[in-house]
Amino acid sequence: MRYSKALIPTLKEVPADATMPSHKLLLRGGFIRRVAAGIYEYLPLGWRVLRRVAEVVREEMDRAGAQEILMPAVLPAELWRETGRWDTFGPQLLRMKDRKGAEYCVGPTHEEVVTDLARREIRSYRELPRNLYQIQTKFRDEPRPRAGLIRGREFVMKDAYSFDADEEKAKLSYRAMVVAYARIFARLGFDFRVVEADSGAMGGTSSHEFQILCDAGEDAIVACESCSYAANVEAALGERVDGEPSVTRTSIPQPVAVDTPGKHTIEDVSAFLGVPSRDLIKTLIYVWGDQSVAVLVRGDDDVNEVKLARAVGAGEVFLAADAEVQRLTGAPVGFAGPVGLRARILADRHVADVRDGVTGANQADRHLRHVLPGRDFQAEFLDLRAVRSGDACPRCQKPLRVFHGIEAGHTFVLGTHYSNKMKATFLGEDGQSRPLVMGCYGIGVSRLVAAAIEQHNDEKGMRWPVPIAPYTVELLAIGADPAIGVRTDGIYHALQSAGIDTLYDEREERPGVKFMDADLLGLPFRVVVGKKGNAGGWAEFRRRGETQDQQVPFEQLEAFLRREIAVANAATHAAAAEAEQSVLKRLGL
Amino acid sequence: MRYSKALIPTLKEVPADATMPSHKLLLRGGFIRRVAAGIYEYLPLGWRVLRRVAEVVREEMDRAGAQEILMPAVLPAELWRETGRWDTFGPQLLRMKDRKGAEYCVGPTHEEVVTDLARREIRSYRELPRNLYQIQTKFRDEPRPRAGLIRGREFVMKDAYSFDADEEKAKLSYRAMVVAYARIFARLGFDFRVVEADSGAMGGTSSHEFQILCDAGEDAIVACESCSYAANVEAALGERVDGEPSVTRTSIPQPVAVDTPGKHTIEDVSAFLGVPSRDLIKTLIYVWGDQSVAVLVRGDDDVNEVKLARAVGAGEVFLAADAEVQRLTGAPVGFAGPVGLRARILADRHVADVRDGVTGANQADRHLRHVLPGRDFQAEFLDLRAVRSGDACPRCQKPLRVFHGIEAGHTFVLGTHYSNKMKATFLGEDGQSRPLVMGCYGIGVSRLVAAAIEQHNDEKGMRWPVPIAPYTVELLAIGADPAIGVRTDGIYHALQSAGIDTLYDEREERPGVKFMDADLLGLPFRVVVGKKGNAGGWAEFRRRGETQDQQVPFEQLEAFLRREIAVANAATHAAAAEAEQSVLKRLGL
Repeated sequence: MRYSKALIPTLKEVPADATMPSHKLLLRGGFIRRVAAGIYEYLPLGWRVLRRVAEVVREEMDRAGAQEILMPAVLPAELWRETGRWDTFGPQLLRMKDRKGAEYCVGPTHEEVVTDLARREIRSYRELPRNLYQIQTKFRDEPRPRAGLIRGREFVMKDAYSFDADEEKAKLSYRAMVVAYARIFARLGFDFRVVEADSGAMGGTSSHEFQILCDAGEDAIVACESCSYAANVEAALGERVDGEPSVTRTSIPQPVAVDTPGKHTIEDVSAFLGVPSRDLIKTLIYVWGDQSVAVLVRGDDDVNEVKLARAVGAGEVFLAADAEVQRLTGAPVGFAGPVGLRARILADRHVADVRDGVTGANQADRHLRHVLPGRDFQAEFLDLRAVRSGDACPRCQKPLRVFHGIEAGHTFVLGTHYSNKMKATFLGEDGQSRPLVMGCYGIGVSRLVAAAIEQHNDEKGMRWPVPIAPYTVELLAIGADPAIGVRTDGIYHALQSAGIDTLYDEREERPGVKFMDADLLGLPFRVVVGKKGNAGGWAEFRRRGETQDQQVPFEQLEAFLRREIAVANAATHAAAAEAEQSVLKRLGL
Repeated sequence: MRYSKALIPTLKEVPADATMPSHKLLLRGGFIRRVAAGIYEYLPLGWRVLRRVAEVVREEMDRAGAQEILMPAVLPAELWRETGRWDTFGPQLLRMKDRKGAEYCVGPTHEEVVTDLARREIRSYRELPRNLYQIQTKFRDEPRPRAGLIRGREFVMKDAYSFDADEEKAKLSYRAMVVAYARIFARLGFDFRVVEADSGAMGGTSSHEFQILCDAGEDAIVACESCSYAANVEAALGERVDGEPSVTRTSIPQPVAVDTPGKHTIEDVSAFLGVPSRDLIKTLIYVWGDQSVAVLVRGDDDVNEVKLARAVGAGEVFLAADAEVQRLTGAPVGFAGPVGLRARILADRHVADVRDGVTGANQADRHLRHVLPGRDFQAEFLDLRAVRSGDACPRCQKPLRVFHGIEAGHTFVLGTHYSNKMKATFLGEDGQSRPLVMGCYGIGVSRLVAAAIEQHNDEKGMRWPVPIAPYTVELLAIGADPAIGVRTDGIYHALQSAGIDTLYDEREERPGVKFMDADLLGLPFRVVVGKKGNAGGWAEFRRRGETQDQQVPFEQLEAFLRREIAVANAATHAAAAEAEQSVLKRLGL
């Protein structure tokens, strides 16, 4: 592509709400533009990347034996009513009525539609297994779309659905998808982790997330440094590591109120009273709808709000406002405590281990000492704390570490949840009718475009891996000498003929502008022809991210680039093979 | 693909509402399934065809210098309000509100969105021309979706939009698209016509339709047998060829009512009274909303309802019900006439040429003779008749012929209609701000899948052209001998490695079932290995639609198939080159 003919509207400035590198760079590089909240259009470069990502996904899905289909984007309400999700999916579902008043939604996921397809078209065990997938634009009316393609409302997703005769066979289908996913993320050049995840919302029994590691990611994942354990923090089991108990005596005095003027943080109280924070009991008031609950964790722990929400059966819970805390506890924030509190009290199970605790006294500037859980207050004890770096791995007891990541893939064992509700059955070998056993598997294709930038960028711009770069080579003509233009035109045509995707910057711009744009767009290989090289018979070659140029004679340039591309592709396929082995080992599949 | 693993749910019976061959065969072959009215899902074979069609479209669009993007499917109302189409597009627009109450629609076309993109990103004449296209799922809430993929509500469309500095340059962009379209339809194997079309609804000044010729097509097109004139019947200009007038005397007697018992058709009256049908004046009552009009055409003409609707400013007009005709004319259907009729009367301009006419008398079983337009009744004279085969070409006066077709592509010169409304301007070379000059270009990608079947089928099933067949070869193993399976397995792997798309029917089915399914799916080339051939060292090769088998030695099979494919591809590209030349000549571009 000739740069002067291409629509590549690069920008110097981007809106202040773009804070993540991928969001900024996709806008600055002219890859995407915002049309409405959480709704973007893909300009030529962004669309090229998205198509290349989709192509890798497609190749690996086909390799795993899945078959590509396309289900509708506009879905009839009646199918969603069969599973009850027309109501339970909530405001994320974008609903509308057609000219006849029939109700529809824009598809956010396709379990209902594909289960309907399966119940009509799959009749016998001889037609099993089947795995059907599609790559499609979907819509979820997110309350807070953010970060460009990371969490949009309209997005491109690959969703696959497997159908098997029994649980045992369904595990094989699941295994094939986990392998395909590991290969996909490896081929796309990602540093990723496969983690155990919560599968509640999908109605299934087990699931894994594929997390792209990235400090700016909104998901926290917990992984063992020694064994293969890894889980989303929402599902993670980590054991507190307390060492020796700080309180050893068995007879605890009755609670005593003490003055703690202005000490309303754990650190302040701990220092003021000389009690380690692990022996403090933190009391937090949470609210949802018109309900509230007091939640206790140990002073050095935090509440996992996802676990809490699940425990109380709420979609989401929020910390109570200051006035609400005052109303419920009779004291300002920082002095709440469970003793004598008239409220429902949930406590993390590790609170039960506190022997001689400190809590707020429900009076301003006062705390209680010598509090003993069970004796001085009652509570429902549950797993409510957030796993921390340093916790003990539930499998091997070695230390866990918390990473941040972007959820890029999710695999679910659905079992017969949907097939039971929708009566999707098949005739078994014995002539008996049985529900299909299902799995579902998603990849956020457009999210991967952003995630790739999160893992591959520097202060100058993007750094595209070869397999998904919008073009592989950027060819720059530097200098006004017409002989240079003649030379680069020739190189451009030769590379085109050789099937090497090339962006050819033949614009009449200053060299500085061209180099800056080249760094911003971040194509893997840069080829520069300037006055000196043209006279000397060589181009300057540089890999994006490196600082050294290599002089490559013109007559060797095509072969040189072919070799660079071959090396990159070989590395990609080696990474896929390695990821396949590694994921099977880690997950024990 | 192994047939036994594939989702190809062929059917013997299809719903009665499937009457067009493509609709029936897409259902029977398991290519598509209906999800809701006008909403289909593409099963693996249907999706493969659709992707192959899209790929040809993409190649030719890229070749023409257009750049692929992807705009959103869910579009904000505010953009549609800027052009007024939020209101004027009517109930075809599927509208909804998001969780915050903001209004959106599912995109039926993207002039507004792309013009918004252009006004933000195109600033200077140096950035022109640009042509942006996308291949996308769209939705139009058609009042009467029908015929499967021919007129669905959800459909896949390629839409392109060109931006130029002035009308002269815009013509070059338009020309490039007409060439690309001609090449696309030729490469896809279509017999098609480029015809002049009405461009009213898009706000432009000129347009062409690309019509796939097909007797079951819902569009009528008119083409000259001698010159290059061709037009949609809605836009066609054809002159009646009357020969010598049948009435030569200049003094016409006053109208006389005559009994015509039970004679309520033109043929009946003509025969009964011995008057040629061209001298009868047909009176039809049309209604729309709460309005009605009497419409006159000569007895051997028909009303073009599109011309009529445009003349009265209605979206659509309908023939009045019998009771309504009785109420308005005082007589049953078949006896209406303009003389003494209290109604608005529109007459085709050729009615004015009738010298001694016959009309209904507005009484049961009575007609009037000796009716003279202008003397005996007044009317608004307009062009209202439908052009017929045999009319004279408006350019060369030679006979026209009426064909039926499926509209598969449409090109519009939009001019500055949208750029003026949306203030999409650029800075010209002289520093002046000017509106972008636009064109838009659509191809019904999913409709083409159906249109291909309309042109390529027989009583046994589909007959796919090589460029868009779901697979190129169907390989059949016939017979229970395990040696045959070993042989066909080997052939299958060899063809796969050679990159020849093969559907391998290794099912344990009777030969009759396999052959019937092969004919139904209609892959271009069939390769059969049976007992005799396996022993003799050859496979039976047959092109779909032919009746002769050819024995091809196993060791030559791959080369043989490669040659067949190469011949088909060469023919395709030759057809494209020829279509390119021919369309330029025909349209004088």
